[in-house]
Amino acid sequence: MSELTRLCADELRATLAEVRSRYETFAQRGLKLNLTRGKPSAEQLDLSNELLCLPGAGDYSVGALDCRNYGDLQGLADLRTLLAPVFGVSPECVVLGDNSSLALMHDAIVYSLLKGTCDSERPWSKEPGIAFLCAVPGYDRHFSICQELGIEMISVPLHEDGPDMDVVEQRVAEDARIKGMWCVPKYSNPSGAVYSNSTVDRLAKMKTAAPDFRLFWDNAYAVHHLGAEAVEIANIGEACARHGHPNRAFIFGSTSKVTFAGAGVALFASSPANVRWYLARMEKRTIGGDKLNQLRHLRLLHNVGGIAALMDRHRAILAPKFAKVQAVFAELLGGTGVAKWTQPKGGYFISLDVLPGTAREVVKLAKQAGVELTPAGATHPYGQDPEDRTIRIAPSFPDLAEVGPAAEGVAICVLLAALEKLAG
Amino acid sequence: MSELTRLCADELRATLAEVRSRYETFAQRGLKLNLTRGKPSAEQLDLSNELLCLPGAGDYSVGALDCRNYGDLQGLADLRTLLAPVFGVSPECVVLGDNSSLALMHDAIVYSLLKGTCDSERPWSKEPGIAFLCAVPGYDRHFSICQELGIEMISVPLHEDGPDMDVVEQRVAEDARIKGMWCVPKYSNPSGAVYSNSTVDRLAKMKTAAPDFRLFWDNAYAVHHLGAEAVEIANIGEACARHGHPNRAFIFGSTSKVTFAGAGVALFASSPANVRWYLARMEKRTIGGDKLNQLRHLRLLHNVGGIAALMDRHRAILAPKFAKVQAVFAELLGGTGVAKWTQPKGGYFISLDVLPGTAREVVKLAKQAGVELTPAGATHPYGQDPEDRTIRIAPSFPDLAEVGPAAEGVAICVLLAALEKLAG
Repeated sequence: MSELTRLCADELRATLAEVRSRYETFAQRGLKLNLTRGKPSAEQLDLSNELLCLPGAGDYSVGALDCRNYGDLQGLADLRTLLAPVFGVSPECVVLGDNSSLALMHDAIVYSLLKGTCDSERPWSKEPGIAFLCAVPGYDRHFSICQELGIEMISVPLHEDGPDMDVVEQRVAEDARIKGMWCVPKYSNPSGAVYSNSTVDRLAKMKTAAPDFRLFWDNAYAVHHLGAEAVEIANIGEACARHGHPNRAFIFGSTSKVTFAGAGVALFASSPANVRWYLARMEKRTIGGDKLNQLRHLRLLHNVGGIAALMDRHRAILAPKFAKVQAVFAELLGGTGVAKWTQPKGGYFISLDVLPGTAREVVKLAKQAGVELTPAGATHPYGQDPEDRTIRIAPSFPDLAEVGPAAEGVAICVLLAALEKLAG
Repeated sequence: MSELTRLCADELRATLAEVRSRYETFAQRGLKLNLTRGKPSAEQLDLSNELLCLPGAGDYSVGALDCRNYGDLQGLADLRTLLAPVFGVSPECVVLGDNSSLALMHDAIVYSLLKGTCDSERPWSKEPGIAFLCAVPGYDRHFSICQELGIEMISVPLHEDGPDMDVVEQRVAEDARIKGMWCVPKYSNPSGAVYSNSTVDRLAKMKTAAPDFRLFWDNAYAVHHLGAEAVEIANIGEACARHGHPNRAFIFGSTSKVTFAGAGVALFASSPANVRWYLARMEKRTIGGDKLNQLRHLRLLHNVGGIAALMDRHRAILAPKFAKVQAVFAELLGGTGVAKWTQPKGGYFISLDVLPGTAREVVKLAKQAGVELTPAGATHPYGQDPEDRTIRIAPSFPDLAEVGPAAEGVAICVLLAALEKLAG
């Protein structure tokens, strides 16, 4: 299709009529497709079905520790040892949580609000007001925590190599209210951006007006490669230590998209001082996590030949779905001038930018035609995309056979919304 | 032994010498016994070992719900239906958590501090100061949450039929800072007190200066009977509703001492408005709990013939341990006038009151003789027992063969500390 923004009025009318017809045809197929959330498919979950029978009869001890009983606040040392290298930390600096890394992020903020970090002069809630930097497009659940807890969100543009560091450095240097920053450093949700070594170094080095500034380093896709290349990022903990800010990074991760999305093991990792601080708070909340689920993971990940081998099998399922979306978008949207989209090397999302002012309409049209999309605006703080432009595409959950039609439906809606806007 | 407080100086010296000798003999046995925490024994945990293999190969769905994946914030409806009657609530009013009810209590307070309850004019943290009533003796982990979060604790005496309601009613009526009260209504930790119908009714009915006052109703031992009698308490949720305070009770419970202490399922239950409020907060924290562990519990509790049948098997293990402590205390401490202890009909603890001013010394002597006890003072806010009198005895974890010697050791220490104090 030719560039829609350059069509004359007659061409525009004709094209609109044609696309509207395609939309009607698509809608009449009565499909029920869902591209909303970054959920693994049943086929991916099957890869870890061994967990359903683990740890197995009579298997509940690790050394002298009975995993069925209370205790072991920090989590099984053997599992910490297994997961630590994935996040570039030492096992002593890992705290295992329940099934949700989001919960650990939430709790780290709650603890900071109510008690302050180990570098805070007072609890964050006692400050006149605090703010977080949010790279956009970003993850809606990060933003929801801030909104819930009254933390102002300040948007920063996210480029392919990470947040715009000139903006970040200036903001944190001049505004002591800025206590934190959300970062998904690898295969970012939703653009797939990967922080460059320079970005990581500048984040670790930059001067912040707040002495207790924290990077909320959500390394959710640490091993979630889609291509042959396993992209590696610089070690944020080491960089922070090297630049004299050893406590700057709170690192989060989980096995949610390695094993079972709803029954994995999450982790918090940071400097020794931060880990002591976190455990001292966590100790008031719980006697310890579910060690049997930790033990299950220990057994499974050894059995499957390790995390990398398991992730290769995920990749074999996921990569064709992403390729399908890319192919459909290229075919239907390429050269139209009303859409661009990312080509991530990992993670769970494609970020689709449509003609400004039409993202909400695209989502609405898609829904009417049987394709559920994440609400437009979800990629931005307060659910407000000022340009009404960005849509998050999550191809992981549907069957491969459904991904093509779903992407086709989205593309038709992108065209239709753009043409309707251009036609005024 | 005769009443120690009535001995003349010579008798005191002689008795002290004799008890000191018994203490030395006991210490020389070099035992390593532990009566510190309310942990189930390995034998009790074995009762639920079927969980180690559950849900089993291919079993991960409940209706259309894939328990392996994300979602279902409130928790499996079938498990809520199974657990709800235990706590006298309807399944819609139950929210399932992870493995720790303590965590749910902590979070309910955190949410109230940062957001306010659904009846609050403002977040609790925005009040000039807030306070909780604490029935004493009580549970140290309740008190730790308050201390951590800067909530003043006001002690109220706990009698056999519940907290001193005259004191409670007066306090909550006149002090709007009092936002909550810790209650373990059945087989209270550590005294075994059971709230009478009158106590429950008065708690539900009383006028509180704070419109958003909450009972933190930790029904940890709802089905944990030690004798043939299964004591039942009045329904707090119904009582609160009847008296026009439908949102007053936050109910907490878990399967921690039903199945696995470290890998059970916890729950929050309350009025519809409170459940909506709780879920709205929880939704920012997590996408949902571990549904596979919920499914495991559903399968197990059906298989074992239900909760009551499983609890009977726990009772068969626990009751002889409690009886042993009672027998040893009666034999060694009966009639001495320096100790009294509770005879609980359920739960996990015996509360032992020693000669005022000697509890710390008893714990110290016991440790030196090889018997670990909960620190003296732990049963009181701030770890301060003003009379230095109360010691919590937890007979559940050691083998039955060890309970006798442990109780004997404690009793000797009680006598020794008392005699040393009386001898000046």
